[in-house]
Amino acid sequence: MENSGHIVKLYGAWGSPFVHRVIWALKLKGVEYEYIEEDLSNKSSSLLEYNPVHKEVPVLIHNGKPVVDSIVILEYIEETWPHLYPLLPADSYDRALARFWIDFGQQKRPTVHAFCGSSKENNEKTGEKMLETLNIIQDQALGDKKFFGGDSIGMVDLYFGWYVQWFPCFEQLAGLQVLNPSNLPKLHKWAMNFKEEPIIKETLYDSKKLLLHLEGIRKKRYMAAQARVL
Amino acid sequence: MENSGHIVKLYGAWGSPFVHRVIWALKLKGVEYEYIEEDLSNKSSSLLEYNPVHKEVPVLIHNGKPVVDSIVILEYIEETWPHLYPLLPADSYDRALARFWIDFGQQKRPTVHAFCGSSKENNEKTGEKMLETLNIIQDQALGDKKFFGGDSIGMVDLYFGWYVQWFPCFEQLAGLQVLNPSNLPKLHKWAMNFKEEPIIKETLYDSKKLLLHLEGIRKKRYMAAQARVL
Repeated sequence: MENSGHIVKLYGAWGSPFVHRVIWALKLKGVEYEYIEEDLSNKSSSLLEYNPVHKEVPVLIHNGKPVVDSIVILEYIEETWPHLYPLLPADSYDRALARFWIDFGQQKRPTVHAFCGSSKENNEKTGEKMLETLNIIQDQALGDKKFFGGDSIGMVDLYFGWYVQWFPCFEQLAGLQVLNPSNLPKLHKWAMNFKEEPIIKETLYDSKKLLLHLEGIRKKRYMAAQARVL
Repeated sequence: MENSGHIVKLYGAWGSPFVHRVIWALKLKGVEYEYIEEDLSNKSSSLLEYNPVHKEVPVLIHNGKPVVDSIVILEYIEETWPHLYPLLPADSYDRALARFWIDFGQQKRPTVHAFCGSSKENNEKTGEKMLETLNIIQDQALGDKKFFGGDSIGMVDLYFGWYVQWFPCFEQLAGLQVLNPSNLPKLHKWAMNFKEEPIIKETLYDSKKLLLHLEGIRKKRYMAAQARVL
């Protein structure tokens, strides 16, 4: 019991890209943790107690205390285990740049949500907006580097990492290919490189299963929205 | 010329709450800086060059390099001058909590924007939602502390600091008083305490002038929106 507070635990849910950011960070740093799968349709009392504000995963428990929200957790992991595989550059200015691009991604969430929610019937505008955003990320954040973090994966790579497996599923549902080699050659190459890193590769899902899962979530949301209208 | 790169410069605009966050941080830390006022209706080529993505203030120049976005700038200032008036707690867990509440504020921006844009004719729903959000901030982030940072002002105080002067203006425009002593006694007391801190007090605007300024911005936006419809 004395030691149990020192164990790292992660509350997650299958298919959540936000949880995956944290899984990648812990695995890259080699921090051992216990994973607890939450049923998001029937959330545990622990999750509600640990994250009373958002009631969502991921929640990281360290020394018995909860850290909430994937970006806040990434910063916490970096501060707690700074020397094991650094996720932020050493230089303050480069750290500010990394945080700027994560913030840029956060600010573009309405664009991302619109694209990820679009169907074959209404994909034109959402696809255009998404391509515009990805172009900025490719040209100004990535450039000619292998990873956003330079030669190795950093926090910005983990932030945008969901592009490599979740994004193609949403593209399929929207009936559009935005992140392809002709639209975005450098960002596409980054996605290929990221996927091939051993730590990342071993955590990826079966693509068909993930597609079905995301399709299922969309259907549930659609039905809930219909129920509110009726 | 050799030394000019080491001067701290701040590109700001009169009446911007985001710029004020940075002014407060620099003043609390006693970092000297040159302030450059931008005309947002006719942005300078320097601003566009330093912040090509958002084209907005604040931009902090340090050692000749631009740092952009108020929260990213606050983190940069804290990392660059950590020992002069710390803005984040020393303990990693407490730092994660501070970042969580800033992120919470960011996530609630749609609620804040809706409230700040509402008029006497359509204030009911926006007022309710705003009160709900402020209640969470009061009860879960502030509690019985004098400041979010404890006994002294910290980064979370600077983040929510615009409540003390900008928020009352938006309340007046919306014809509602949400952040009053009976609705939110603790948060109201915090606002009074924050305003009375010498560094904060000396930077506040003439309230009437600020109200007119914000009213002017709203009118301009309304006319631009009408022009798009016509």
